[in-house]
Amino acid sequence: MSSPVLISLDAMGGDHGPPVVVAGVRDYRKRHGGEGVRFLLHGEESAIRAELTRNALGDDVCEVRHTDKVVAMTEKPAQAMRRGKGSSLWNAVEAVKAGEAGAVVSAGNTGALMAISKLILRMSAHGLERPAIVASWPTLRGVTAVLDVGANVESDAEQLVEFAIMGEAFHAAVHGGDKPTIGILNVGSEDMKGHEEVREAARILREGGFGLAYKGFVEGDDIAKGTVDVVVTDGFTGNIALKTAEGVARFISALLKEALTSSVPARAGALLTLPALRRMRQRIDPSAINGGPLLGLNGIVVKSHGGADAKGFGNAIRIAVDLARSDYLKKVSESLNRLTVVLEQPAAEDAAMETPQ
Amino acid sequence: MSSPVLISLDAMGGDHGPPVVVAGVRDYRKRHGGEGVRFLLHGEESAIRAELTRNALGDDVCEVRHTDKVVAMTEKPAQAMRRGKGSSLWNAVEAVKAGEAGAVVSAGNTGALMAISKLILRMSAHGLERPAIVASWPTLRGVTAVLDVGANVESDAEQLVEFAIMGEAFHAAVHGGDKPTIGILNVGSEDMKGHEEVREAARILREGGFGLAYKGFVEGDDIAKGTVDVVVTDGFTGNIALKTAEGVARFISALLKEALTSSVPARAGALLTLPALRRMRQRIDPSAINGGPLLGLNGIVVKSHGGADAKGFGNAIRIAVDLARSDYLKKVSESLNRLTVVLEQPAAEDAAMETPQ
Repeated sequence: MSSPVLISLDAMGGDHGPPVVVAGVRDYRKRHGGEGVRFLLHGEESAIRAELTRNALGDDVCEVRHTDKVVAMTEKPAQAMRRGKGSSLWNAVEAVKAGEAGAVVSAGNTGALMAISKLILRMSAHGLERPAIVASWPTLRGVTAVLDVGANVESDAEQLVEFAIMGEAFHAAVHGGDKPTIGILNVGSEDMKGHEEVREAARILREGGFGLAYKGFVEGDDIAKGTVDVVVTDGFTGNIALKTAEGVARFISALLKEALTSSVPARAGALLTLPALRRMRQRIDPSAINGGPLLGLNGIVVKSHGGADAKGFGNAIRIAVDLARSDYLKKVSESLNRLTVVLEQPAAEDAAMETPQ
Repeated sequence: MSSPVLISLDAMGGDHGPPVVVAGVRDYRKRHGGEGVRFLLHGEESAIRAELTRNALGDDVCEVRHTDKVVAMTEKPAQAMRRGKGSSLWNAVEAVKAGEAGAVVSAGNTGALMAISKLILRMSAHGLERPAIVASWPTLRGVTAVLDVGANVESDAEQLVEFAIMGEAFHAAVHGGDKPTIGILNVGSEDMKGHEEVREAARILREGGFGLAYKGFVEGDDIAKGTVDVVVTDGFTGNIALKTAEGVARFISALLKEALTSSVPARAGALLTLPALRRMRQRIDPSAINGGPLLGLNGIVVKSHGGADAKGFGNAIRIAVDLARSDYLKKVSESLNRLTVVLEQPAAEDAAMETPQ
């Protein structure tokens, strides 16, 4: 489990740059040991070195590659592709392409990271226009991977099947799922429910022989229940489901805060329940689930939230290390090849119709 | 505000039938007075009469129309249409068609209610395949109407505009919104975000001259924030957003319960905070928001949750009364006529292209 691995970091990305990225490295090592893990930090050398000293991280753990070019958080993807060459983000991704690093982590501009990663690494999933983003969703049973949560607004059956393949390999590598189960998000569990794309994707998953534990359709409330380990959906629905959930969590949090400060007895009670409520908060702490890999690329790219703190960035590093050390890329590539074969075969009913009577 | 109105009730619908329906009438009258509101109850006469006696409701308030035919909760819509004639559900809807009742409330089988209502009352919105279901969603600022939450799986631009028109009139009539604001659910707020359908619907709402307070695109977290009064979305996304939110609310509830019983001090604290937590619960009490009208029909049909209690059924009655007494049907019909005119006009850019240079 502790084979040596080099993780490439965009040290200038995110709202905070080097202070959070370097503190994130320290946090990762504190929580996860990090034996055999070294880092290659791209960006402003003096700023990075100052943080390395502050965090007592030596050359044995962190190497610095200087560049003073930075992709702004507000830059449009097309601009970033044209003008981003030589930036910390670009160089960090290029270290993966060159085979030097096993994965890259950036808290930079999502659109730019997606465009530059696609340009440099190329897509491994042929059906995808853009890499899929996976969210790790805390549930009653653990963590469910939900994808795509935003990159591919319209997803056909082939893309949905690619999400299933990549999501399964991701869950096995990062959340330790032994044979993760898969469901397709729909408005009901019966076979005839939903639109053409989900029904066709379900057919391919049932008949395609990918060796996946496909469990059928699931509904919105199955996500938080943890009914399956991987929930597959198009980027439009996935993005809206994720943000709706964040909104509801914040709404209930606001109501709870209001209730617990609404009277003197409530305030006294709140003090007594505080330790328990804090432990509860940890189960839905955004830092503990920060780090969304961009799936479907020939290489491992993990996006950290732009506003993440050191603990959050450290968790994104953990995800990158787990993916780099797993057989994720090999497993996905084999299944995607299998998918190409399946898609070239006529569907069972078409074949039957072509048979002369 | 207290013009006389007759509400038709499917007394046999739902998981409980007459006991909850009749207790719902009493609950409605207790909470809302119900001056000028009379009820026509369809179903098994002896069972209904027993409940009327138990709830001290006289003939001045409730009239009974006997039928021993019932649509089962498990019956498929097509079966219900073929075999449902003369059932309590069918007769309850027919009283609206006959102009006898101002609205109908049923806690029966959703698919059957939808199919039978469409058959008897016909659609007023031409673009819709099936009536749209609207959910009243508690938010930080009050109540936001979200539609469609399940009936129309694929919704084109015309349907989305119809949802906006009907949702606005619904919010004004039931939640007292003075000039309710409208947003279309999308993956970002910029004009170029999302798929063709949402972008085209946004264009029609901006340019169509419906006199609606259209505010642009909103994201998933805007629902619970209450950013707008009406959130418009296709039935697939809306259903998944609603059920995802229910799942998250139950998940947090379960965590909270676990936290508040996890230790002796937490239990003591929970006792002190209980009254405040109860008040908080009321703000997200499903009974207080029960009652989803089926929009787009020539008549007012309100669906109560099958498992609703008397308070919940009473709230569905309140919604039916508010709609029946408002200018909802007239307002929607005028706007839908305006939409037909707008859709027949070529779009501004098409017209410009046809102009000779």
